[in-house]
Amino acid sequence: MSILLNNSPYDNGPWVYYLNKYLPSMDVWVYPEVPDPNKVKYAAIWDHPANDLERYPNLCAILNLGAGMDLIDKMPSLPRVPIVRLVDPEVGTDMAQYTLYWVLHFQRNFEPYRRYAAQREWHRIEYVTSLNYRVLVVGLGLIGTQIAEYLAANRFAVTGWSRNPKQVDGVTCVNGDDGLNTALAETDVVVNCLPYNSSTEGFLNEHKLGQLPKGANVINVSRGAVIDEAALIAALESKHIGAAALDVFVTEPLPQESPLWTMPNVFVTPHMSGATFARSACRTLADNIERLEAGEEAFPLYVPPQHQDAK
Amino acid sequence: MSILLNNSPYDNGPWVYYLNKYLPSMDVWVYPEVPDPNKVKYAAIWDHPANDLERYPNLCAILNLGAGMDLIDKMPSLPRVPIVRLVDPEVGTDMAQYTLYWVLHFQRNFEPYRRYAAQREWHRIEYVTSLNYRVLVVGLGLIGTQIAEYLAANRFAVTGWSRNPKQVDGVTCVNGDDGLNTALAETDVVVNCLPYNSSTEGFLNEHKLGQLPKGANVINVSRGAVIDEAALIAALESKHIGAAALDVFVTEPLPQESPLWTMPNVFVTPHMSGATFARSACRTLADNIERLEAGEEAFPLYVPPQHQDAK
Repeated sequence: MSILLNNSPYDNGPWVYYLNKYLPSMDVWVYPEVPDPNKVKYAAIWDHPANDLERYPNLCAILNLGAGMDLIDKMPSLPRVPIVRLVDPEVGTDMAQYTLYWVLHFQRNFEPYRRYAAQREWHRIEYVTSLNYRVLVVGLGLIGTQIAEYLAANRFAVTGWSRNPKQVDGVTCVNGDDGLNTALAETDVVVNCLPYNSSTEGFLNEHKLGQLPKGANVINVSRGAVIDEAALIAALESKHIGAAALDVFVTEPLPQESPLWTMPNVFVTPHMSGATFARSACRTLADNIERLEAGEEAFPLYVPPQHQDAK
Repeated sequence: MSILLNNSPYDNGPWVYYLNKYLPSMDVWVYPEVPDPNKVKYAAIWDHPANDLERYPNLCAILNLGAGMDLIDKMPSLPRVPIVRLVDPEVGTDMAQYTLYWVLHFQRNFEPYRRYAAQREWHRIEYVTSLNYRVLVVGLGLIGTQIAEYLAANRFAVTGWSRNPKQVDGVTCVNGDDGLNTALAETDVVVNCLPYNSSTEGFLNEHKLGQLPKGANVINVSRGAVIDEAALIAALESKHIGAAALDVFVTEPLPQESPLWTMPNVFVTPHMSGATFARSACRTLADNIERLEAGEEAFPLYVPPQHQDAK
């Protein structure tokens, strides 16, 4: 039995190496080189061609090569097999560290200090201690939860918002529309961790950004389209939003003509907050394939809209 | 009985407020307003005039208003009373967070990303995961230990060096000259946490900086003069040192003419890594005064060179 691998547009090489290492009894075939479609049992894919998956009659599971499921959601149809997200705890840690870096950047005034240094000015700025610096994590999925816990463990005052009630150690959890309204008004920096889907598109819009206190900061580590980019740019230009650290954008790579690149209060990074390293990601993948081979459930399972719509 | 307070050159106001609050039975006199020198039992001081302390015949203890003891060391003479450092755990936390910020800055290539963004370039840079990013903390006193533990808890590969053997949770501890030589050669970023005294002046000199791998980074959070500033500037100019985040300098405020202000690979902050907040600092001070009043030892005691020299 074989694994079909397609980590497009990224390099498949390290993934072949580690999957062979962790699952020596399986063949790994890199798309589009598939010697026998009947033997493909698992499809480990990222940006995969529409309808190709229909070619494998013995497909048992689709393993997405990332945590974000928007590429899966966009497929016109999907075989009726379990679909598994790749939530590598190492990636979550890197994303949490990325987020902490920017929270510290804002809390400790490192940007004003850069400007002072350029003017050769020795000038201290009072700051709010981390215990009183209020971070709102919007979205408490696996990654949002990990980020919220990490910031709380680093002694920040963390509130987490989710649609439905949740509990996270060290984090003040709120939910629903009222919970969000209240939390936004009491936030120094908001961290977007919501997945991108039809119900979250433009979720952080002009109205919600307007509820933040003047000078609040924004960090986006999930998907660009969850924030209304035009509304964010307007709020940054008016200085209602103090600054933004953005790792994700509506269009990636961020287009040359985007004003975000060079706005003085915007920090652009190229979707690097949580790089997937083949070594640890393949460990997670291999564990899931071993579970499936043993007749157990893989983790975490995902139900795409294509499966939800069918009766 | 009274406390003589002199937090020169900083504002005494909040210290008076919190000392009165925490120690209501004591008077707090702000130098130089001392109604009765005989009644001064404790001197809580920072940059205090030489010889003034001799005026208080009933002085029972000197409480330094910071962790660094270099101002005490410089006094021509000191009454023979216990001398106590102010090691506010909140200050250590802030210093650890400051250090973590710069470690993340270097590890995750945030400076190159700024340059790419200025050129509107979307370009990812491979990075070493924090578990393999090697931080060497030089000096394992109270603050160095706290910083080393904090970085290790944040999943960095931390080595700690001290003159004599120590043990710190999660940290590979080395000691002595040989230990330092080996550790320097295997370091991505070195964090100076040594106190400044006659045996540490210029400790990180041209030779030791030269032992670091090419491109290694330097963070200084203790005292400027522990690093040979001229040697550091030369190593930064030659790019042997990749970058430096410096919070402390041989002369503070950093003189206008210093090249450090505007070197492209140097980040200057105005000795703000661990701001002392009166509220928490006075809690620590008051706890020590209560211990002394109860006949117990204050913590941590310090033996200055003036007392060591006398027989």
